[in-house]
Amino acid sequence: MTDYGKMIPKDFWEAVRGGKFNKPTSGVSHGYAQANLVILPKKYALDFMIFAQRNPKPCPIIDILEVGEITPPLSKGADIRQDIPKYRIYQEGVLVSEEEDIRDLWREDFVSFLLGCSFTFESALLEEGISIKHIEQSKNVAMYKTNIACKEAGIFRGNMVVSMRPIKGRDITKVVEITSKFPEVHGAPIHIGNPEEIGIQDIDNPEYGDAISIGKDEIPVFWACGVTPQLLALNAKPEIMITHAPGYMFVTNIKNEDLSKG
Amino acid sequence: MTDYGKMIPKDFWEAVRGGKFNKPTSGVSHGYAQANLVILPKKYALDFMIFAQRNPKPCPIIDILEVGEITPPLSKGADIRQDIPKYRIYQEGVLVSEEEDIRDLWREDFVSFLLGCSFTFESALLEEGISIKHIEQSKNVAMYKTNIACKEAGIFRGNMVVSMRPIKGRDITKVVEITSKFPEVHGAPIHIGNPEEIGIQDIDNPEYGDAISIGKDEIPVFWACGVTPQLLALNAKPEIMITHAPGYMFVTNIKNEDLSKG
Repeated sequence: MTDYGKMIPKDFWEAVRGGKFNKPTSGVSHGYAQANLVILPKKYALDFMIFAQRNPKPCPIIDILEVGEITPPLSKGADIRQDIPKYRIYQEGVLVSEEEDIRDLWREDFVSFLLGCSFTFESALLEEGISIKHIEQSKNVAMYKTNIACKEAGIFRGNMVVSMRPIKGRDITKVVEITSKFPEVHGAPIHIGNPEEIGIQDIDNPEYGDAISIGKDEIPVFWACGVTPQLLALNAKPEIMITHAPGYMFVTNIKNEDLSKG
Repeated sequence: MTDYGKMIPKDFWEAVRGGKFNKPTSGVSHGYAQANLVILPKKYALDFMIFAQRNPKPCPIIDILEVGEITPPLSKGADIRQDIPKYRIYQEGVLVSEEEDIRDLWREDFVSFLLGCSFTFESALLEEGISIKHIEQSKNVAMYKTNIACKEAGIFRGNMVVSMRPIKGRDITKVVEITSKFPEVHGAPIHIGNPEEIGIQDIDNPEYGDAISIGKDEIPVFWACGVTPQLLALNAKPEIMITHAPGYMFVTNIKNEDLSKG
């Protein structure tokens, strides 16, 4: 059985491109950063970049493909149109389909952004002996809409999406310390404790990903999430926007430690 | 005599706007961050933002005015067209004039970027008892062209401009530690020691600012500099680009400590 955890990104891209891998990417190419994808026509790209500059916690840009480019500068050899296992296509703010290959949809005026992903700090947490429940349970992380407003830029406005991990009380200080060293992958938590304070009414029903139960000795800890642009697309309604499907990330050639400031 | 060091930014903007202040801004509004300015027509703005994302040491963006806006979002009440004591106008890559007010040149398609400035970490160094020679001598910092290539983006390419401060051998470790806490104002030094290794042939003749002599017990320490975009303009040749004049910065309403990660 193929061990995708030990595969280098270049070989993983080939596996995805050849249709051999079509699952969520958690655990793939251990040690390498994974990324959220946002593809927009050039006319919306400046607005999106200004939005990301103003909202670096949900939208930490780690690499940019200039107009028409298909290879990420920091991941030479990859093809952004076919090396992600699942894409989402939004038209006028509506999710119209999921695709495994977007070469047919490619336009010469597309600008592609790669945003840091919390899988990077999860590796650091695991190495420090912090247990991460959704990984133990082989589930996707739980993600929620909140009432936390992002700073606006151009057509982009709306509330932040967060990911949640239940953490034991004795570990929370360590979790804050470790994740704060990773500003390019969402950084320190934005909220710890009561979900209702950030507008989450039902913690058992996440809008994205899987529900994860919270034990009596655990507190829910929330981080800004790279799925935020997908929620914003509902308001901004660009004619087309292509993203990864939540959990199906782009595996970059960037080492996790290169995204640490610690 | 007016003490500009104790003046809050709002009052300083009024002094500049009224023509009462027309000198370099070093020492003004103590505790508030000063910024480099780059104004470009919208058609070049995405290229410049991608350039800045790829070259955060010379080009750390701390605030952006969207197309046509004249007030920086983080400095409410300021007018970017008249609150800097001296502007430089570049046309097709050529410095054509210096102005104290650019309202006559303003275009509705202008996008304005504010980049962090090393004055912020100089305050932190002074507070730690590190002497800064050009401040003691009431001179402008020495700035040089180098052979260090920036990463390209769109029309923007070229070498980095650096600032130089002579530092005593016993203080260099502390200087690296302190400035590395300020990634949004150029961060840690990019080179320490021999100027020739980064393409500086004559340390006594800086391309920008004033010459500062290096004592026998001192080593030249070099930081990436926000004047870099002015050098790039020579290559990129945008039809128009407006910047601050070196040393004549925009005084923001952002506190220095808000740019520290330490």
